Amino acid sequence: MAPAASQLPGSVIADIDGRRRVVIENLRPRVDGGRFAVKRIAGDVVEVTADVFADGHDVVAAVVRHRRDGARRFGESRMLPLGNDRFAGAFTVDDLGRHTFTVRAWIDRFATWRDQLARRLEAGQDVGVELEVGAGLIDEAAAAAPAAARPALAGWRDRLRAADDEAAAAALDPVLAALMARHDPRPHCTDAEPEIAVWADRPLARFSAWYELFPRSLGGERHGTLRDVEHAIDRVAGMGFDVLYLPPVHPIGETHRKGPNNSPTSAPGDLGSPWAIGSAAGGHTAVHSDLGTVADVRRLAEKCAGRGLALALDIAFQCSPDHPWVREHPEWFRHRPDGSIRHAENPPKRYEDIYPLDFESEDWRGLWEALLEVVRFWIGQGVSVFRVDNPHTKPFPFWEWLIAEVTREHPETIFLAEAFTRPRVMERLAKAGFTQSYTYFAWRNGKHELEEYVRELTQTGLREYFRPSFWPNTPDILTEPMQSGGRPTFAARLVLAATLSPSYGIYGPAFELVEQRGLRPGSEEYLDSEKYQLRDWDTGDPDSLEPLVAAVNAARRAHPALQSNDRLELRHVDNDLLMAYTAHTADLADVVLTVVNLDPHHTQSGWVELPLDRLGIDAEHPYQVHDLLSEATYTWQGARNYVEIDPRRLPAHIFHVRRRVRSEHDFEYYA
Amino acid sequence: MAPAASQLPGSVIADIDGRRRVVIENLRPRVDGGRFAVKRIAGDVVEVTADVFADGHDVVAAVVRHRRDGARRFGESRMLPLGNDRFAGAFTVDDLGRHTFTVRAWIDRFATWRDQLARRLEAGQDVGVELEVGAGLIDEAAAAAPAAARPALAGWRDRLRAADDEAAAAALDPVLAALMARHDPRPHCTDAEPEIAVWADRPLARFSAWYELFPRSLGGERHGTLRDVEHAIDRVAGMGFDVLYLPPVHPIGETHRKGPNNSPTSAPGDLGSPWAIGSAAGGHTAVHSDLGTVADVRRLAEKCAGRGLALALDIAFQCSPDHPWVREHPEWFRHRPDGSIRHAENPPKRYEDIYPLDFESEDWRGLWEALLEVVRFWIGQGVSVFRVDNPHTKPFPFWEWLIAEVTREHPETIFLAEAFTRPRVMERLAKAGFTQSYTYFAWRNGKHELEEYVRELTQTGLREYFRPSFWPNTPDILTEPMQSGGRPTFAARLVLAATLSPSYGIYGPAFELVEQRGLRPGSEEYLDSEKYQLRDWDTGDPDSLEPLVAAVNAARRAHPALQSNDRLELRHVDNDLLMAYTAHTADLADVVLTVVNLDPHHTQSGWVELPLDRLGIDAEHPYQVHDLLSEATYTWQGARNYVEIDPRRLPAHIFHVRRRVRSEHDFEYYA
Repeated sequence: MAPAASQLPGSVIADIDGRRRVVIENLRPRVDGGRFAVKRIAGDVVEVTADVFADGHDVVAAVVRHRRDGARRFGESRMLPLGNDRFAGAFTVDDLGRHTFTVRAWIDRFATWRDQLARRLEAGQDVGVELEVGAGLIDEAAAAAPAAARPALAGWRDRLRAADDEAAAAALDPVLAALMARHDPRPHCTDAEPEIAVWADRPLARFSAWYELFPRSLGGERHGTLRDVEHAIDRVAGMGFDVLYLPPVHPIGETHRKGPNNSPTSAPGDLGSPWAIGSAAGGHTAVHSDLGTVADVRRLAEKCAGRGLALALDIAFQCSPDHPWVREHPEWFRHRPDGSIRHAENPPKRYEDIYPLDFESEDWRGLWEALLEVVRFWIGQGVSVFRVDNPHTKPFPFWEWLIAEVTREHPETIFLAEAFTRPRVMERLAKAGFTQSYTYFAWRNGKHELEEYVRELTQTGLREYFRPSFWPNTPDILTEPMQSGGRPTFAARLVLAATLSPSYGIYGPAFELVEQRGLRPGSEEYLDSEKYQLRDWDTGDPDSLEPLVAAVNAARRAHPALQSNDRLELRHVDNDLLMAYTAHTADLADVVLTVVNLDPHHTQSGWVELPLDRLGIDAEHPYQVHDLLSEATYTWQGARNYVEIDPRRLPAHIFHVRRRVRSEHDFEYYA
Repeated sequence: MAPAASQLPGSVIADIDGRRRVVIENLRPRVDGGRFAVKRIAGDVVEVTADVFADGHDVVAAVVRHRRDGARRFGESRMLPLGNDRFAGAFTVDDLGRHTFTVRAWIDRFATWRDQLARRLEAGQDVGVELEVGAGLIDEAAAAAPAAARPALAGWRDRLRAADDEAAAAALDPVLAALMARHDPRPHCTDAEPEIAVWADRPLARFSAWYELFPRSLGGERHGTLRDVEHAIDRVAGMGFDVLYLPPVHPIGETHRKGPNNSPTSAPGDLGSPWAIGSAAGGHTAVHSDLGTVADVRRLAEKCAGRGLALALDIAFQCSPDHPWVREHPEWFRHRPDGSIRHAENPPKRYEDIYPLDFESEDWRGLWEALLEVVRFWIGQGVSVFRVDNPHTKPFPFWEWLIAEVTREHPETIFLAEAFTRPRVMERLAKAGFTQSYTYFAWRNGKHELEEYVRELTQTGLREYFRPSFWPNTPDILTEPMQSGGRPTFAARLVLAATLSPSYGIYGPAFELVEQRGLRPGSEEYLDSEKYQLRDWDTGDPDSLEPLVAAVNAARRAHPALQSNDRLELRHVDNDLLMAYTAHTADLADVVLTVVNLDPHHTQSGWVELPLDRLGIDAEHPYQVHDLLSEATYTWQGARNYVEIDPRRLPAHIFHVRRRVRSEHDFEYYA
């Protein structure tokens, strides 16, 4: 059977511009060929590279073209050749939201002609006719140029046509080259397709320290309230956090309510899990009466903002059997042949206090719209940061649509995906639009596995769209090393999370009070978990890690090197229980070296190797490393230096690397 | 400014199928996201992989769908999970030409239900309602199934509904699972886009030994003819070649004709370069009268075919100043302001005997059609293999169109790209459709650079579309190592070319007669090059490499391992002047180990390491390596074995690896 001609690319001559000779390939950055947006922060310079080439030996020219999404006009900046047909350019995403870019390239006829002319002249060839060719090119450019540019171009043309001793020099004049680069037409130019989207977030999307707490535990003996949270703001802000995140604040269902320690039955007075959302008192847009009111949330968001904190709420799209939607929209739930609604389960496990929403409902559009309204409702109360519970159990198209809908109106909104699941699923959620993502960090404890994971996050395509958030603990996760390692492990994991990832978080006060009691051996659940009961935390405990947390967050805020993982680089130490890495700013003005002892029991020592050149350190002179945690300062020299860390004191150094600087009064100091 | 909603992917709910939950990513094989075809040979099994997953924990199912290009119906084969959301499947490209494939995936509701049921039963849960759910799924499948399948499905449904002791066992019966896999509907399935094209060539496209000769040198004292070539067929076929390739056979221009050794002036009687095509006697569809006629070409092609040889002609799309097109189509050439036609040049170098065609001509469509007619003309004379001269100086869209046009009608046609240029350009020509490509092999002489190049060709994305052809020499290329290394270098380069690449070629008789005289120091041109004059070769020379060439080609034909580079693997030798590599068939029935001494002057020795497991060799027993060149046999044992090669005798071993086999009469032998 003869194939249909229309399906053979390039086979229908009428559809081809046969003179479009320039090819653009391998455009970067790009996610899945342009299907998803690259993520950046407003104000970032986006570096663009591409392979740009044509047949033959003509000179090609290329520009990056970029625009605010939906704008008619492109901004444009020239790309420069890096060799081997690779070109590089850049543009800045000035404001929040969606931008797009592409590359346009064409045969640069004037540059080709000029390049050949130079070689002809060098070989002493007669160039009379060639100068006339060049004059013709200038004429063509003038015809297409704005009127204001024409006299200058005509002047150059006349100098070439003069055919005198100076004509050749004029032809090679860089001023003429620059003029022609601006005005020469670009016939048969090629545009890279598709346009690549860049989503620009606010800085908090890249650099953020999160603190999670349960409001209901803030009341001491009684049930805590949102007003109690207001009183905790000073402590949280004082520790240097950027985001205060609360588990769901909605009414909790009574049917099949869980008792303490996830008991399948509850006694009167048991509080149930905040994630069993909805009761006769309301659903996802209501506030639990024991916590307060919607007005209290609005007030809390304002108070937080006043202290430089963003309030984050939990988005958990699931319902208790008592949620109003169960009655109002039974079609949003899956029914069994006996008429009952299917509760959440992962056989043989059952979660009788929760009904999942049925995204295969015939009325999925109605459901989507209702869920969007939930997010809009809380945005209306002043909330712009959301931690999304189990996003991997809802369809990817839903998230892509919801996040696009929300951020089109509110581009400052941040969504953190709580998906602890398989790699491809976590990646896809990030591609679909989640601003930040929980990670496997909690389960990466050895040096090799930590290093491998950091490399994957910072040196592969993931870096363009997946913003990791490192959490040593969460209300669901108390790992075995944390249960057994105690305080040194808590401290080491804090430093690792806060310096390996520009976004990280802890669940407190359990974290700083070193709550290490697991439910039972082999379980990662807490004993007496706050998910099911109140806890009365003694945040004034003198053994609290609060001062260390504050010091770590202060180091992060003072050092721009720690505010991005674009230049996080692992360093060699000749001891597998010590892990070392540097981060630096693009201009090398700020360099931070972190060294962590992964052994909670013993002092470990070793030699750390630094690539001095790369970090802007003079190999011939001493330099200082100043520990931002202990305030100790050491003078080092050369590439290899000794470190020794006793985990019972402080399990890590966060070193600010200070190089010798000469002042204008010829006085040397370290900075 | 608010972005246009229509530009935000997934933001218009009316355009979304919100229940299409399965995602397909990272489909392989694929070239540039599907923009270009993957290359295979008719009869090949195409192995397909993809990441296939959905939200949640449902079981997903996937099939590879494939069809002959333009066919309405797809063939379909099930994909199997490899773990970590990766799936693999395969299909066969049965016949020549263009095929396409894609992956279709969906939530497998029955498999999900069955999996959960098994877990419920194991936990001793009551499954009464679940069996009813399963019966409902069977009913739905039956409603969509062909009438013939319905009774069987109804029977299974009834067994589930019986709710007796055997109902659960019936529900888990693999026969029911297989039946449901065939008939269960696939609601909201996802198709990977775009469909990926696979171009299936004939076997010669992958495995071919080329022999190039100048017909005009075959006449002894006089000008040789195409009839003389007929007499050379036996020798060429006897050496085991598959393709006999002739430089252009067309009339040669007289204007600015080159003299011997590329002299800018010629004397009467000088023959000129065959690549200066066209005279008053005709152009690209004419045959030089001293060589013969078009009918002679047709006859030669037939004679070649009779001896298992394919005749290859040279396609050089350029004209001498005397070519008829210069008069008939002046618009196909570029004119200078003084009215003259621009000759070929790369300033300051000038090629006055050649006018390039102007692909930026206003009449580029007319030019393209004329060039297509040239190819069609020679196909009409029985030629189906073309070596294309300097394709990199013509636009990529032209080649993509021309090759598509030709191969749609004549899918057996083979185009070898003679592009010795930058990597991206060579790659793009292969993507555009060239069947085979010349390579950098001639300039890769050290072990490290050879190994690096082989890795690039066989282990990167290139392997899907770039079929290398390795040539130790061509009429344009006599490298310095060949000039200085003499016979041992010629022999080593032959073995390397013929065993590192399933397609290779030599320019003879210069090659087998060890013509090593360069034009001058630093030049890669031959002294007294056949490009500009006749050469009278003594092919009966007893020192000729002809017997070695024949032995090498015989080894290639006898050993399927050498007929593809899919499983070419470099092997470690503890001597940088020895290079070793193995090739094997997928079933390990044929294993070949090649070891080459890269030093033309001295005997080199070393220990070769083989991964015995991987090659199907028993580490506990001896095995034999039989040299296909010297016929010597060695008995080896274990992973490391000693080799010693004297380049003055034979610079290489091509070992057939024979493992011990026990016959049915309990007699052991090596095979």
